[in-house]
Amino acid sequence: MNEKMYGLGSARSVIREIFEYGKARKAEIGDENVFDFSLGNPSVPAPLCVKETLCDLLETKDPVSLHGYTSAQGDAEVRKKISQFIEKEYNSENTPVSSPDLIYLTSGAAAALTCTLTAILNKGDEVLALAPFFPEYRVFVERTGASLVTVPCKSGSMRPDLDLIEDAINEKTAAIIINSPNNPTGVVYPEEDIIGLSKLLSKASESIGHPIYLIADEPYRELVYGDCFVSYIPNYYENTVVCYSLSKSLSLPGERIGYVSVSPRTKDAQKLYLALCGAGRALGFVCATSLFQYMMASLLGKTSDVSAYEENRDILCSALAEYGFSVTKPDGAFYLFVKSPISDAKKFCEKAKEYELLLVPSDSFGVEGYIRISYCVKKEQIERSLPAFKALAEHYRKGE
Amino acid sequence: MNEKMYGLGSARSVIREIFEYGKARKAEIGDENVFDFSLGNPSVPAPLCVKETLCDLLETKDPVSLHGYTSAQGDAEVRKKISQFIEKEYNSENTPVSSPDLIYLTSGAAAALTCTLTAILNKGDEVLALAPFFPEYRVFVERTGASLVTVPCKSGSMRPDLDLIEDAINEKTAAIIINSPNNPTGVVYPEEDIIGLSKLLSKASESIGHPIYLIADEPYRELVYGDCFVSYIPNYYENTVVCYSLSKSLSLPGERIGYVSVSPRTKDAQKLYLALCGAGRALGFVCATSLFQYMMASLLGKTSDVSAYEENRDILCSALAEYGFSVTKPDGAFYLFVKSPISDAKKFCEKAKEYELLLVPSDSFGVEGYIRISYCVKKEQIERSLPAFKALAEHYRKGE
Repeated sequence: MNEKMYGLGSARSVIREIFEYGKARKAEIGDENVFDFSLGNPSVPAPLCVKETLCDLLETKDPVSLHGYTSAQGDAEVRKKISQFIEKEYNSENTPVSSPDLIYLTSGAAAALTCTLTAILNKGDEVLALAPFFPEYRVFVERTGASLVTVPCKSGSMRPDLDLIEDAINEKTAAIIINSPNNPTGVVYPEEDIIGLSKLLSKASESIGHPIYLIADEPYRELVYGDCFVSYIPNYYENTVVCYSLSKSLSLPGERIGYVSVSPRTKDAQKLYLALCGAGRALGFVCATSLFQYMMASLLGKTSDVSAYEENRDILCSALAEYGFSVTKPDGAFYLFVKSPISDAKKFCEKAKEYELLLVPSDSFGVEGYIRISYCVKKEQIERSLPAFKALAEHYRKGE
Repeated sequence: MNEKMYGLGSARSVIREIFEYGKARKAEIGDENVFDFSLGNPSVPAPLCVKETLCDLLETKDPVSLHGYTSAQGDAEVRKKISQFIEKEYNSENTPVSSPDLIYLTSGAAAALTCTLTAILNKGDEVLALAPFFPEYRVFVERTGASLVTVPCKSGSMRPDLDLIEDAINEKTAAIIINSPNNPTGVVYPEEDIIGLSKLLSKASESIGHPIYLIADEPYRELVYGDCFVSYIPNYYENTVVCYSLSKSLSLPGERIGYVSVSPRTKDAQKLYLALCGAGRALGFVCATSLFQYMMASLLGKTSDVSAYEENRDILCSALAEYGFSVTKPDGAFYLFVKSPISDAKKFCEKAKEYELLLVPSDSFGVEGYIRISYCVKKEQIERSLPAFKALAEHYRKGE
C-alpha cells in the first residue's frame, strides 16, 4: 500500500474536520444554532438557466452523442465557443489570448490544476505559491515529486510581495500559482501588481533560461463586487495557463466542470498542451462530463446571483469592524480573512466554537494569526451569528 | 515540461488514430460507406429511465444540494444503496462482500483504476495484467512508478493461464488486474478459473508475505449473452477491489460515473480505503459528479438494451466463420477477437482499410496476430459491412 496516500486520506483537511464537527453539533443543538463558516460551498442556488439548459439537452439531443465520449480534450464545438468567449470578454490586445486547440476541458479547477502541474513538473522542480493559499496546492504539487515554495504576501494588504517573489526564484523554479480573487483572503490583485509580476517573471525566465509558467487559478473570476477589475493575466504575461471552473460562478461545485486554457503566447504552447493531454490520460480523466460540457457552452458568462454574497460581505464587515475586529473589506470571492485577536489562531477558533462559531484558522493556508470566514452562507445565518461574534469580541476585550 | 506526459499526449493511441482516420474517410466517401469497428463507444442509446431520472432530479431536488459538493468518497446515501445492491445481487455467502464505508464513487472506471493503483502502488512494485488487455492499464500503472508485467492468456480460449501467473509472481507483485467480461476478447472467465486463481493468489500472498490485491475491472459486467454467469470475485478471493462504471451498461461513457468497492474481507480494508481517498485527493478528483451520483443510486441494475449487441455478435460471428475467419463466439462485452489470416495483424488491418473496414490490430493489447472488432455499432453497419469482410477473406484465400 502507498503510505503517502494513506496519510493524505486519513489526515482529513482542517476545513473538513471543522465541517464534520459542525454537522455533529447541529444534530445536537439544531441547525440554526450552529454558525458554520468553514466550507466554500455556495449557498446561492444555481440559476434557473442551468436546469433549463440541462433539461433541454436531455430532451432534444440524441442520447448517444449527448452521453458519448467526447475527444479527450473536450468537444471541439464547446472549445470553440469557450475560446470565442474569452477573446470577446477578456482580450485587451490584438493577438489572441486563447485558442480552441489549446483549451482542455476538465473535471473542475482541481483537475485543471493537477493536469497542468503534472504536465509541467519534473521531480525536483519548485513551484511558488503566495501565502496564504488554498491548502490543496501543496498536495497537488508534491504528488508530482516537485516542491511547493511559499512566498508570503504583504501583511495587511495581502497583495503579492514582488521582492520576495524575486528572491524565491531560482533555476529550479518551474511555475508560480496565482489565485485572484483569492481564497482565503478575498483580495483581488490590482492591475499594477499583475504588470509588476509579469515584468519580473519575464526577466527571471530569461535569466534562468527557461520559462516560468504562471498558473492562474480562477474559480472566483466572476465573484467580484462593485466596479472591481480582474486582470486577465494572459494579456500581461505570455507563459500563462488559466485554470477555470463553474463551481463557484454557477454554484455547481459537485458537478466538476471547468477547463484549462493555455495562452497561445506561451513558449512551446502546443507542446505544453499535448503534455496536458498526456497528464489527463495518465491520471484517468478520459474526458470532462459530456452533459456539463455542452451545458457550459450554452451558459458562458452566466452566473448565480452574486449580489447575495456582496450583501453578506457588507453586513459581516460592518459588524465585525464595529465589534473591534481588524478586518479589510475584500473585493472578491466569498471569504473574509480576519486578524485573530490573539496570535494563536487555532486557540482563537477553539474559543469561537464555544460561541457556536465555526471558523478556520489560517495556519492551514500557510500563514499564522488569521482566521478565514466563508460567507457563502444564507443571509439569515450571518444575521443570527452577529451576537455570537459580538460576545466573542467582548470576551477578548475583557481579557485584555 | 514533463517529457513523459508530452509523450503520452502526442502519441495518440492506435485506436484513436484509426478512429480519426475513419472520420476523415467518412467525410470523403460518406458515413455509410466506412465500416468503423475501432471504438468501444456504445451505439445503443441510454434507456429512457436515464433521461427521466435526470429530469426528475433537476425538477424536484433543491439545486444547492443537487449540485453541491458531496463527501469526497461520494454521498453517504448513494453509497449505502450501492452496497445494498451488491449484497442482494452478487453476495453468495454470509459475510458481506461490500460496505457503504468502503465504496468510493469515481469519474468512471478509468478514475477508479488510477485511484486504486495510486493507493496501492509504490515505486518498483509490479502489477500483473493478462494479455490481451486494455492498453491504458500500462499508462495507469507506469505513472505510479510501478511496472506492468504481462502474462499471456491461453491461446485459443483466451482464458487465464494459472501456471504462467504463478511463475510471474514474486515479492514485488503488488496486484493483478482482471477484466471479465474482457476487452478486447469478449471472454467471460468461467467460475473454475476464478476459483483456481483465488487459491493461487491466496497461497502466493502468504508465501511472499503480503497481500496481492486483485483489481477487478468490471465495466462490462452486465454485457453478457445467453445464460452466461459472471463470477463476483469478492465471493472467491478476499483481497479484491472492484472497479465499476456505468459507461457501457447504461451507455453513458461521456458522463464518467462509476465506483471502487473495496471488499470488507480485504486485509487492511479500512486502511486501503483511506489510501484510496488520499489518491483521489492527490489526483484532483474532489468528488464524482453529484447529479450522476444521485442518478446512479436510482438506476442500480438497469441497463441499455443489451440484446442489440447480442444480435450484432451473432450476425458477425456467423458471417465471419462462413467467410473462413477463425472466430470464437464470446459471451460478453461487445468485442470480437479474431485471428488475423496473416501473422502481421497491422498489415492485415492496413489491407482491411482498402475495403473500408476499420479494425484494431492486437499488438496494442499486448499480443500479436489478432484483430479486435468493436461490434457496439448499429446493426445496419454490420449488415452493410459483410460484403467487405467477404471480399477481404477472399483476397487472402486467393493469396494462399
